[in-house]
Amino acid sequence: MTSSSAGVPLIYPIHEKSTEGSSPPPLAVGGKGHALMELASIGAPVPSGFVCSPALSAFFQDGAPNPPEQVKATVDEGLNLLREWSGKTFGDAQNPLLLSVRSSAPAPMPEAQPTVVNIGLTPDGVDGLIRQTNDARLAWDAYRRFIHSYGMYVLGVEPGGFDQLLAKALSQANAEADHELHAEALEALAKGFREHCESQAGCALPSEPREQLYNAVAAGFKAWNHPRAVDHRRATLQEHLPGTAMVVQEMVFGTGAAHSGAGSLFTRHPASGKKKLYGKFLERAYVEDLTAGVRFTEDLSALGKLAPKAYKELKGWAEKIERHFHDAQEIQFTIDEGRLMILQSRPAGRTAAASIRIALDLVDEGICNERDALCQIDPVAIDLLLHPTLDRSGAEEILSKGVPASPGSAVGQVVFFAEQVEEMAAQGVKIILVRQETTPEDIGGLSAAEGILTAHGGLTSHAAVVARGMGKCCIVGAQQIDINYHINEMTIGEKTVKRMDWISLDGNTGEIFAGQLPQVQPSLEGDVARVMEWADRHRSMGVRANADTEADARKALEMGAEGVGLCRTEHMFFDIERIPIFRKMILSVDEIGRSAALAELLPMQRKDFMEIFRVMQSRPVTIRLLDPPLHEFLPRSIRSQTRMSKAMNISVEMVQHRSEALSETNPMLGHRGCRLAFTYPEIYHMQVRAIVEAACIVAKEGVAVQPEIMVPLVSTARELALLRESIRDLADRVMEELAESLSIQIGTMLETPRAAVCSRSIAAHADFYSFGTNDLTQMGFGFSRDDSGSFLPMYMEKGVLEEDPFVALDQEGIGAMMRIAIEEGRKSNPDLKVGICGEHGGEAASVKFFHKLGLDYVSCSPFRLPIARLAAAQAAIEMEEE
Amino acid sequence: MTSSSAGVPLIYPIHEKSTEGSSPPPLAVGGKGHALMELASIGAPVPSGFVCSPALSAFFQDGAPNPPEQVKATVDEGLNLLREWSGKTFGDAQNPLLLSVRSSAPAPMPEAQPTVVNIGLTPDGVDGLIRQTNDARLAWDAYRRFIHSYGMYVLGVEPGGFDQLLAKALSQANAEADHELHAEALEALAKGFREHCESQAGCALPSEPREQLYNAVAAGFKAWNHPRAVDHRRATLQEHLPGTAMVVQEMVFGTGAAHSGAGSLFTRHPASGKKKLYGKFLERAYVEDLTAGVRFTEDLSALGKLAPKAYKELKGWAEKIERHFHDAQEIQFTIDEGRLMILQSRPAGRTAAASIRIALDLVDEGICNERDALCQIDPVAIDLLLHPTLDRSGAEEILSKGVPASPGSAVGQVVFFAEQVEEMAAQGVKIILVRQETTPEDIGGLSAAEGILTAHGGLTSHAAVVARGMGKCCIVGAQQIDINYHINEMTIGEKTVKRMDWISLDGNTGEIFAGQLPQVQPSLEGDVARVMEWADRHRSMGVRANADTEADARKALEMGAEGVGLCRTEHMFFDIERIPIFRKMILSVDEIGRSAALAELLPMQRKDFMEIFRVMQSRPVTIRLLDPPLHEFLPRSIRSQTRMSKAMNISVEMVQHRSEALSETNPMLGHRGCRLAFTYPEIYHMQVRAIVEAACIVAKEGVAVQPEIMVPLVSTARELALLRESIRDLADRVMEELAESLSIQIGTMLETPRAAVCSRSIAAHADFYSFGTNDLTQMGFGFSRDDSGSFLPMYMEKGVLEEDPFVALDQEGIGAMMRIAIEEGRKSNPDLKVGICGEHGGEAASVKFFHKLGLDYVSCSPFRLPIARLAAAQAAIEMEEE
Repeated sequence: MTSSSAGVPLIYPIHEKSTEGSSPPPLAVGGKGHALMELASIGAPVPSGFVCSPALSAFFQDGAPNPPEQVKATVDEGLNLLREWSGKTFGDAQNPLLLSVRSSAPAPMPEAQPTVVNIGLTPDGVDGLIRQTNDARLAWDAYRRFIHSYGMYVLGVEPGGFDQLLAKALSQANAEADHELHAEALEALAKGFREHCESQAGCALPSEPREQLYNAVAAGFKAWNHPRAVDHRRATLQEHLPGTAMVVQEMVFGTGAAHSGAGSLFTRHPASGKKKLYGKFLERAYVEDLTAGVRFTEDLSALGKLAPKAYKELKGWAEKIERHFHDAQEIQFTIDEGRLMILQSRPAGRTAAASIRIALDLVDEGICNERDALCQIDPVAIDLLLHPTLDRSGAEEILSKGVPASPGSAVGQVVFFAEQVEEMAAQGVKIILVRQETTPEDIGGLSAAEGILTAHGGLTSHAAVVARGMGKCCIVGAQQIDINYHINEMTIGEKTVKRMDWISLDGNTGEIFAGQLPQVQPSLEGDVARVMEWADRHRSMGVRANADTEADARKALEMGAEGVGLCRTEHMFFDIERIPIFRKMILSVDEIGRSAALAELLPMQRKDFMEIFRVMQSRPVTIRLLDPPLHEFLPRSIRSQTRMSKAMNISVEMVQHRSEALSETNPMLGHRGCRLAFTYPEIYHMQVRAIVEAACIVAKEGVAVQPEIMVPLVSTARELALLRESIRDLADRVMEELAESLSIQIGTMLETPRAAVCSRSIAAHADFYSFGTNDLTQMGFGFSRDDSGSFLPMYMEKGVLEEDPFVALDQEGIGAMMRIAIEEGRKSNPDLKVGICGEHGGEAASVKFFHKLGLDYVSCSPFRLPIARLAAAQAAIEMEEE
Repeated sequence: MTSSSAGVPLIYPIHEKSTEGSSPPPLAVGGKGHALMELASIGAPVPSGFVCSPALSAFFQDGAPNPPEQVKATVDEGLNLLREWSGKTFGDAQNPLLLSVRSSAPAPMPEAQPTVVNIGLTPDGVDGLIRQTNDARLAWDAYRRFIHSYGMYVLGVEPGGFDQLLAKALSQANAEADHELHAEALEALAKGFREHCESQAGCALPSEPREQLYNAVAAGFKAWNHPRAVDHRRATLQEHLPGTAMVVQEMVFGTGAAHSGAGSLFTRHPASGKKKLYGKFLERAYVEDLTAGVRFTEDLSALGKLAPKAYKELKGWAEKIERHFHDAQEIQFTIDEGRLMILQSRPAGRTAAASIRIALDLVDEGICNERDALCQIDPVAIDLLLHPTLDRSGAEEILSKGVPASPGSAVGQVVFFAEQVEEMAAQGVKIILVRQETTPEDIGGLSAAEGILTAHGGLTSHAAVVARGMGKCCIVGAQQIDINYHINEMTIGEKTVKRMDWISLDGNTGEIFAGQLPQVQPSLEGDVARVMEWADRHRSMGVRANADTEADARKALEMGAEGVGLCRTEHMFFDIERIPIFRKMILSVDEIGRSAALAELLPMQRKDFMEIFRVMQSRPVTIRLLDPPLHEFLPRSIRSQTRMSKAMNISVEMVQHRSEALSETNPMLGHRGCRLAFTYPEIYHMQVRAIVEAACIVAKEGVAVQPEIMVPLVSTARELALLRESIRDLADRVMEELAESLSIQIGTMLETPRAAVCSRSIAAHADFYSFGTNDLTQMGFGFSRDDSGSFLPMYMEKGVLEEDPFVALDQEGIGAMMRIAIEEGRKSNPDLKVGICGEHGGEAASVKFFHKLGLDYVSCSPFRLPIARLAAAQAAIEMEEE
């Protein structure tokens, strides 16, 4: 019955009578086309029409007639179907058949997709429509809407001019909104629109209805192939999408004189998730008016009063449609003189919190299966549900507001120095650490505090990153706060908070309260556990956690980690007992002095690793060799330097001198990572020995340990080749000493742009890659994480960047480097295992992207594992469906 | 006569009788094969043989027999030729025909290429050889050399074991070198070699001469396809090379009892370039022994005494061969019982200084044309020739030695503070500025000094880069120097140099002398000018200069610039009159204050640009908008801050506070470049206005100005799109104000790795790219130029890197990013103009690489322009020949 190209149909009918069996998938007809065909198939009242297949795109080639003949023929075929069903002939001015044309893309696109209404109207047709409906207002309104939508989407006329003409018409009529305009005013407006449109476009509106229709359909196909759209799809790995479909449907008017209007409804409450119809309605309107913001919408009860029968019918259909699509729906409808027509149904928008409630309820009500439910849950919801919240009465005193950097809440007494926190916390005092900003030296205090508040810094400042890693509430960039360290107090405007005063932090909102607010512990453990169980059944990508200590490792297991993806050995050196020894190593003038200090550290590091191996059992544990520059381990303030000089019995001058000698202009690009291995080889030697000894000892206890040694900051193949050889030699020697034989993988953290483009030669020396997307982002953009706070917010405000690339991975640029690294790397080493251990490993959109890239696993802080598990499952399901 | 594959011959004869017409090009038979065929064609005494074509490589496929049948058949065909010419049969133990096999690659390769000698020898053959030559010593020596070379190159046996066995034999025989060993000792050594070789290889040496020969030829083809070799060719853009040829030749022995030996000679002196035979000779040796360093070589006079007739013949051939190849040659030869045999001739190695002398002489002597002569000149020579040198007597007192960072020489009085230099220099005092290291604040002093000496820093430190930019002699990293700023003196060991003492610097060697040495001004202006004239006739890539001032622009023209490729506007702000105004701008708290200060700067910047436009006339001038972070313009020392606070009538605390607020952890990745345009848009507005006003004013004077506005540090397309729009708007407005209409190009400095991979979307908004390879190298490797001095030297020492990537472009990694940027950029913008303005624009190897990448121009400091012009010409000639 319908035409086809190489076996693919070029046209699909939307009509109760013609929809036999299941409709084609969204990929073939787009989301909208699919939904409409499905609605027709269950007998819902949808306007008749047809879908033009994306296969028609192929006919849009350079030099082909525009629109192509095949497109015209297909559209003609559709019109024949419509005539058959409705008895109306398109282009008949006496009994006009009016149509709408809408794009139906297989996935959301960033730019507005064409929608043209009332196609087929001409000045003659307006007369016919008036005779037919006996409603001049409706007819002129329809005509001006045709010109407006055709002008914008087909002729490329800017919308501003139309808006100005409408505003002028409203002001002349002393009206507030367009439904108050009378037929005469609308007629004048339509003529004004027409003049404006034709002068802007430099051509006349087609007087031939068919020509209008052909052009409108063609406009949709052309928009899909616009270079910006092509770029977007390439950047988001959506190049495989087949193209947009175009939906052509008979018009239904909601602008009739009586019992007419348009509305939309949600089958579940979008904020709470509760099962309850919730929607808005406009009398005498098109559905497009609902979002245009031209007038205030009413709630659904208005429809109940205006057309009770249609309302009852709508409620029935809402329930049926939700059940049919296995998900909460947002339904658009029109009431045409009391008659209900459903224009569209799609998955309903919802808040993070609602998404989890709806998913669980739908499964429990038997409306959807766990696979579909999983895809409906916003991963952010999981995060919020795993942290305690403040129990607010509304009467609490708000002191200030900062940037919410790590969710949850914290209640405690204020302390301004990190070194004071540990001791007090050990005595059971709950502390909020308040600082201008934090540094790596503060790690002990950060770890012991209940929550962290800083006056400076952004989402990617040291405090923010560390706190998220620890799953600890943190607010940063609270700029109103003025801290006076000398007298141990801070002022916020007129208010003063002294040391040991109580404050409360809301990490979800960034609010800072005076006093001790009550906290509500997370109560949805059961629900979250249930969702995680589903997720683990469906995901294919592995999940690991970043864990530096035994406690971290336990937490990681609890949160579902299948291994440790990043164990940062440097954090072990900041321990209060060890830092003096490590500093002694740094201050040594020669290799002998350094080796002596390292020998003291060896048993401590070995113990750390043994503890972690014992917790992780036979799961892989990736240990990164020392990464930060040595100066990070030396104190910066004169006070700390003096204390250090006394403790180590050397002169302050010596401490300062060494500290200055090691200081760097750009430490991020300095003497760190594997570069240390070439200048101070003894450091890595000690670490490798500690790892291998620990692994051998724990292996003797019967544990099938899986140690993986990771070399950081590699930029050339030769670096890795040389270090791999020396690590391998030492590991073999240690295993021989301890009479143990283990398989130890050696890989690298892929974090410099050069390493990404030279991946083919580097991968030949690596068992695995773990992408360090934080540093790759820093070097790729040239954005220092510590300094970008001075311009990144402005970048987001001015739309230069849509998202902070340190929060959500930049898929276009940094993602492209990752893709090159993986493709090239697997050319020389097809067995290369690839993971990621940056902050992005716990961000849902990034995790989905990583799945598409073909990563073997993601690793993130234990507290973000539930997000990663859910996102990985969603990505797997989505890709399977594609 | 010879076999062929798809029309390409598989074999070429090396024999006087068979070489008709010109021999195949080096690409077809490799450099060695080509030279030998040429030598044969002019009747030179070369051993007969044949060349196996690179086309045979194609038969080395997975699963094919090894060696492939076609290779065997080709070799057999060659053996037939040899039998025809010599009457000897290969494999005949009574009258053995011995052969050598050598690789003949079309271009130099980084790893040793196979050379196997005395193929065909077996234990039986040794007996035959003894009977034939009546020289058991020669025969056993030949056999042990066969085993050694076959073992290494065909069987992959490490050379160390052979070396140990030889050392043992020498010690037992109480001999110093192998020619002293008697036949018995050599026989024992040969047997020891054989045992060692067979046990290491795990297989017996082939007893079949043909099998030996097949395998030796195959080994060469296989070495060419080794993954490391493939990687190297890909990285150096040599993937198009057809493969290696293999040369098979009859053996000639230089180890006979009398009148025998081997030698090599240069037809021109390799250091001075003077026309004079220069060489070395070894009695009773193979040519391989000349480079093995086993004993001291004698000069050619030894040959004159040993075999005067052969020596005379050799001199005649040297002249003929040089004339035939149109270049100075290095010739290897053997004297076999008084008979001269020439084994190889290739272009002679030479120093930079010699290269220019030889090239000019050869042209003048009619031996070569200017095109060939151009390719023989080392671009470094040009650089040395353009600077004054110290006239050394040998009696001068050397104080210390540092890293030579910028060539030439400087003689002057020592001053330790940059701010003192300008005034003194203005009074005609010649100053050497001595500092621990320099900062951008010191620019005035650097500019006024004769030469610069720093105790810290490497080749890419601030002082080094600035000095090279200025063409000024500079020595850095003179670590023995201890400067005491308080008492205005420096100590070097026991010696003390006070302020105003005279010292002399040799920027070519890094030597620092006490006192005032005489200088020799460059005397080869005429020669250099002649070479430049040739170069400009042959190069296709444009050359521009980096120039910030009118004086720079004049220098640029003088050095042959065709435009300004980089005008750094920030250098204009460091001027002593302007810096207070610029600082006022930085210290302003709001946009109004900033705009007021900028309004004061506008006429000054406009004047700068007008001056440059007037000098450059109708040549393009690329002006980069402000790039460095603002804190670079504020003083750092308390002393300077105090002076500034007084001058500006504000508190020191205010200066310090603002300075701290602006300070950054990683300024390289901080708030700079086009990021400033989003936070302080008024700065770029002022600069664009100044540029466009200047261009309009100079255009009205009748100059066809070609301004190009360059946006620095772009990492996203949106940045450039937004800035381009605002620059375009403002430029149009200014041109309207001044009633002028100019074509102004807007482009970007391509210097972040992300911009390289996202080039397709960025190029849509750019008229041109100028690669900032310095920053691209910093971000690509993650190497801070300011800090890499602490590990880069170690990287070079340990062979992690072959060259400092800030000196010679890293072609494999940073080059790959450039290639991506160009390819992707031209997809969206085929008209994109592409240049480079980093330091690499004046480095010869990098310039050649840029030519291959298809860059439109390079830009470098005026003083390096002659290098760029020569290298560009050489690249064009080389690519044409390929």
